[in-house]
Amino acid sequence: MPHIFDSVSDDEIRTTARVVKALHGDAKIQFSQIDRLDPPKQLALEYLAAERQGSALPEVPRRTYCYYYRNQTVPLRTAVVDVAVGAVLSDEAAPKGVVGPMCPEGMQAAESAVLAHPVVQQEIALLGLDKLHYDHPRLGRLRYKVTCDTWMYGRDTPGAGPPLVQAYMYVQLDHPDANHYSMPLRFSPVFEYLTHKFVRIDYLPTGADAATLQKTLPFKQVKSLEYHPNLLDDATPRAGLKPLQISQPSGVSFAVEGSRVTWQGWDFRVATNVREGFALYDVHFKGRSLFYRISLNEMTVPYGDGRPPFHRKQAFDLGDCGFGATAGSLGLGCHCVGVVKYLDTRRTDLDGNPVLVPSSVCMHEQDYGILHLHRNFRNNSEVVTRRREFVVQCVATVANYEYILNYVFDQAGAITVQVRATGILSTVPVDDDVNTDFSTIVGPGVTAPFHQHLLSFRFDTRLDGDENTVVYDDYVADAPGGDMNRYNVAFRQKRTVLDRSGYIEQSPFTNRAFKVINEKSINPVTRRPVAYKFDMPARQMLIALPDSFNARRAKYSTQQFWVCRHADDRRYAAGEFTNQSERDSGLSVWADGSESVRNTDIVVWPTLALTHAPVTEQFPVMASDFMQFLVTPASFFTENPALDIPMANNAFHGSAYYEDNHAAAGQDAAACCKGNL
Amino acid sequence: MPHIFDSVSDDEIRTTARVVKALHGDAKIQFSQIDRLDPPKQLALEYLAAERQGSALPEVPRRTYCYYYRNQTVPLRTAVVDVAVGAVLSDEAAPKGVVGPMCPEGMQAAESAVLAHPVVQQEIALLGLDKLHYDHPRLGRLRYKVTCDTWMYGRDTPGAGPPLVQAYMYVQLDHPDANHYSMPLRFSPVFEYLTHKFVRIDYLPTGADAATLQKTLPFKQVKSLEYHPNLLDDATPRAGLKPLQISQPSGVSFAVEGSRVTWQGWDFRVATNVREGFALYDVHFKGRSLFYRISLNEMTVPYGDGRPPFHRKQAFDLGDCGFGATAGSLGLGCHCVGVVKYLDTRRTDLDGNPVLVPSSVCMHEQDYGILHLHRNFRNNSEVVTRRREFVVQCVATVANYEYILNYVFDQAGAITVQVRATGILSTVPVDDDVNTDFSTIVGPGVTAPFHQHLLSFRFDTRLDGDENTVVYDDYVADAPGGDMNRYNVAFRQKRTVLDRSGYIEQSPFTNRAFKVINEKSINPVTRRPVAYKFDMPARQMLIALPDSFNARRAKYSTQQFWVCRHADDRRYAAGEFTNQSERDSGLSVWADGSESVRNTDIVVWPTLALTHAPVTEQFPVMASDFMQFLVTPASFFTENPALDIPMANNAFHGSAYYEDNHAAAGQDAAACCKGNL
Repeated sequence: MPHIFDSVSDDEIRTTARVVKALHGDAKIQFSQIDRLDPPKQLALEYLAAERQGSALPEVPRRTYCYYYRNQTVPLRTAVVDVAVGAVLSDEAAPKGVVGPMCPEGMQAAESAVLAHPVVQQEIALLGLDKLHYDHPRLGRLRYKVTCDTWMYGRDTPGAGPPLVQAYMYVQLDHPDANHYSMPLRFSPVFEYLTHKFVRIDYLPTGADAATLQKTLPFKQVKSLEYHPNLLDDATPRAGLKPLQISQPSGVSFAVEGSRVTWQGWDFRVATNVREGFALYDVHFKGRSLFYRISLNEMTVPYGDGRPPFHRKQAFDLGDCGFGATAGSLGLGCHCVGVVKYLDTRRTDLDGNPVLVPSSVCMHEQDYGILHLHRNFRNNSEVVTRRREFVVQCVATVANYEYILNYVFDQAGAITVQVRATGILSTVPVDDDVNTDFSTIVGPGVTAPFHQHLLSFRFDTRLDGDENTVVYDDYVADAPGGDMNRYNVAFRQKRTVLDRSGYIEQSPFTNRAFKVINEKSINPVTRRPVAYKFDMPARQMLIALPDSFNARRAKYSTQQFWVCRHADDRRYAAGEFTNQSERDSGLSVWADGSESVRNTDIVVWPTLALTHAPVTEQFPVMASDFMQFLVTPASFFTENPALDIPMANNAFHGSAYYEDNHAAAGQDAAACCKGNL
Repeated sequence: MPHIFDSVSDDEIRTTARVVKALHGDAKIQFSQIDRLDPPKQLALEYLAAERQGSALPEVPRRTYCYYYRNQTVPLRTAVVDVAVGAVLSDEAAPKGVVGPMCPEGMQAAESAVLAHPVVQQEIALLGLDKLHYDHPRLGRLRYKVTCDTWMYGRDTPGAGPPLVQAYMYVQLDHPDANHYSMPLRFSPVFEYLTHKFVRIDYLPTGADAATLQKTLPFKQVKSLEYHPNLLDDATPRAGLKPLQISQPSGVSFAVEGSRVTWQGWDFRVATNVREGFALYDVHFKGRSLFYRISLNEMTVPYGDGRPPFHRKQAFDLGDCGFGATAGSLGLGCHCVGVVKYLDTRRTDLDGNPVLVPSSVCMHEQDYGILHLHRNFRNNSEVVTRRREFVVQCVATVANYEYILNYVFDQAGAITVQVRATGILSTVPVDDDVNTDFSTIVGPGVTAPFHQHLLSFRFDTRLDGDENTVVYDDYVADAPGGDMNRYNVAFRQKRTVLDRSGYIEQSPFTNRAFKVINEKSINPVTRRPVAYKFDMPARQMLIALPDSFNARRAKYSTQQFWVCRHADDRRYAAGEFTNQSERDSGLSVWADGSESVRNTDIVVWPTLALTHAPVTEQFPVMASDFMQFLVTPASFFTENPALDIPMANNAFHGSAYYEDNHAAAGQDAAACCKGNL
């Protein structure tokens, strides 16, 4: 009997596919996505309450949702299935114009179809690659080949139609580890995604203006920039890096039973899913409820190169594809070090067969320096605790880019949400004599346009219960003078309550802090409502103008912190269907100010944003670029909840001196290290 | 023969004290600070050039500076000594009004004097502590005692005078590990620092207004909030934390020879000093010059409680005391884990004797997740590298607060400058029925006023040479329409060159990036000047009004990013002497717009700021609050400088599965982990 939050099983995928296919007789069914549907929240809360009390659990139907196409044509259809009984609960056509998310096998099939199509083959022939080769200093003679990335087709006009892909074409060395992003081509075929019908070829601008050469010329050979050690000119890795090994000789400090994780006062569930990678459920710390559900729910990546057709590069990496669908398997001692627990992802292929992505999520502990310390300088009495962290990680490969999603739990009730962007820049061809200020040249004939990454997180809050409120606190100077400010140094906190659904504007220069509070749970020390703070970095939000499709499709990306009431179908910031969407059906609808969000069941949606102007150091592969925010208690507990952490000492940590003679030199500071671990 | 950047030696301190004392016959000399003075930069550059070429080194005098008082009276005197020959190079009285930094022994002597003074003893007697005791659940009967923190006396009126201390008084349990900050008293004696003469007692406001009760009442017993495990009611530490041990079985990847550190392409020197904790010198990466000198040079901590005398709480933790003077010894397996190299600090006591602070700086490697990764989803060919970091760390205990300063070097040419604020909040007494919005109640009768931490870093830049320039880049939407922006999605970079010394305003909503460039060193890929970016978090700067002493004394704290020309005596953002200063003599003078800063020898001064509104979780000891910025190549190198990092694998990292049967379950993802380490 699975827990209500447990991930979908292979059988559940098979059952869903079977009963949906059975609805349609001989029609050809192509699946877009199958996954577990969260239970209705009210029912889930009853279940969780019973679970905690140890009383009889209410019956909660196991439901899946299914997106699929019939006979390779729109409309997309959506079904909900009770998989325990194999019953279709609903089945309907999506609204006109809606298309479904891409399935990885669908994208790869489209890629093959594009490359094999005679029109594309004809263009490729014009390159004359068969007459060229590259003499690699170590590998000898290598031929060239052409590959393509099939992209979601960012909407630029109103109207309905079949799902499309725009293909970006590249030359690469004919080697399995080659970097095709180094040699982008100047034409971009557009195809139908389902039927693989050819639509047209777009030629790409390569100069300082939007003009294009409407034909393909022979490939002008350049040295490709490679990232894989197998293809570097010099195979010798950088010298001197010695192993740094992390061991837990007495075992780990966490426990995983099914989807439930407990660690150092934390208690939550983790379940992988195809759209978000994974979600956290029923998050408690030290016995108190914090969040019903946490996830990254959407990311849009709009490019700022306005020259058609590049304006159509606006991916919705979760809604159009899915972080679970693009998740990679994480290797031990590679993506994850220490003592590692893995979880798997299961999704459907085009035919409704389950696909396993093993080890798509890893969980482990790490040390990250000092948590708290104080030394009484009078007598050197000192307390030092180490900051142990528990990390839940997944990695999504969305074509060129990788996103490393980390939730980092500390021992004092805080969660750091950290995303690392790595992988390879999306590149376009550029003429030799051209240098623009919307793109960075990263190699011969190749430039990386500026773009943005705008990630929406969803926190279904449950601070000490279901009735929560959002406030923001500003810190403002007092008026000069008077008894309270005779010296003009005074400032104070000004609190504003958000009464209606909507967003809160950023205000870093008043140190504005977004807080979720429970007005009915009063901190006995402060005598004020308990709170958790969302500590967000001030960031430039979507740059595209408000009437652009980029903005209309992703209204969430124009503001940093949104608040709306909970509803079971309010799950994704830009709406349920983002692929080729014309406008968003998410936060712009649910957070339109029409509902009260005070003392009620609310969801907060923090947006992380990165305006990414590439630099040469980010090619041919980029070091992780960090984005993060902190979710931290702000007078939620009555005192530091980590006072009970044992003090550090070296019997516990087993560290060593760099110099053998350190202690002998009379400089052994071990005396200050009388931990109680 | 020490290197020109090596820290001061015991003998050099002794020599300095000796020759300075010799100037003054029988006068009583009290030292404030003795330390090495950096060599003139031009001479140092000649030395460094010769050192790199292996040619004969020019002679660079070893010089110390010395601050001292004669016969316990102002003026402060300042001397410069050639310690190799024992010659006083200069000796003069500081300008009228200037007082020197506090010496730790001077502060402790003042503390003892305050506590012993009859007037203070009389106040203490009024508390009636001898009639009280506390029955600790584990330790049995404990008595109470009174302690005090002596503070720098923040300037609030113009004029000269002797150095003063204001003492904040507390009751504590009579136990060496007790937390006195839990029970602040309602009177504050002011004393002369040098003579220990009593000046007056200030009574403290404890209500919602500035009124004070001008007398001391019997101590009203409350339960103290303790942070030391020895004093917690429950001695049982939190269960379940298992050792996480970091070992380097083949040795470390760094080498330290004297003050020189090399690690993974980095090459620099580290030298401790009494004012800044330590400084980094002659910083190179992969053979290219980046910075001549890097340090944290100042921090001011102004409080926002405007009720006298709290307005005077404005510490300059470096200029008034010194991060080296307040540095603690760092324990192995405690403050630092892994394989650790330590450095020591040497400073003077009041009499000119050297004081050793052993192990005040630690250096070690750590793993911090994934550096870069890319997986070709077509064939799962994947490159994964781990992010190894090299950390240089010190910890300063400035009375109640601790500051953990970390420079974190990565393998790709970036430095993360991270400061963790921990320790104990500075508290004041509060009446039971009072709750203000400029202070957070953290326990019975005790509240923690809002304040700010404003840290100035100094980067003496040397990007590919001495002629550098500062620019800032904004990212702005293109005007709508036209061929280049038909869909209103375009944006581009707008570069502004800073021609004159001054500051650059923050502009997070245009993603403004501060960059140091070398206009004469052109990146052959981008065909534009090479650059390093200072990636700063947008922050509220000093809140105190411009005409406050807080602002006049620390003009630097009103802006985030300052630029001025180098001069050997432009070292500290608020000026050389901050203690009781009336106005700053630092950046407000050197960055007044009167000098060109283009293509010349410049210094940039990033300010990190934190507006700190305490929360209950930060008492009685606060978990580290993080502040950080990133200094990162921005098209300085031609490609990712970490391409030569070996790929990760588990033969190298020795990690383990949480579940013994993981591999057997057929989910071993080790296949993706074919590293070349």
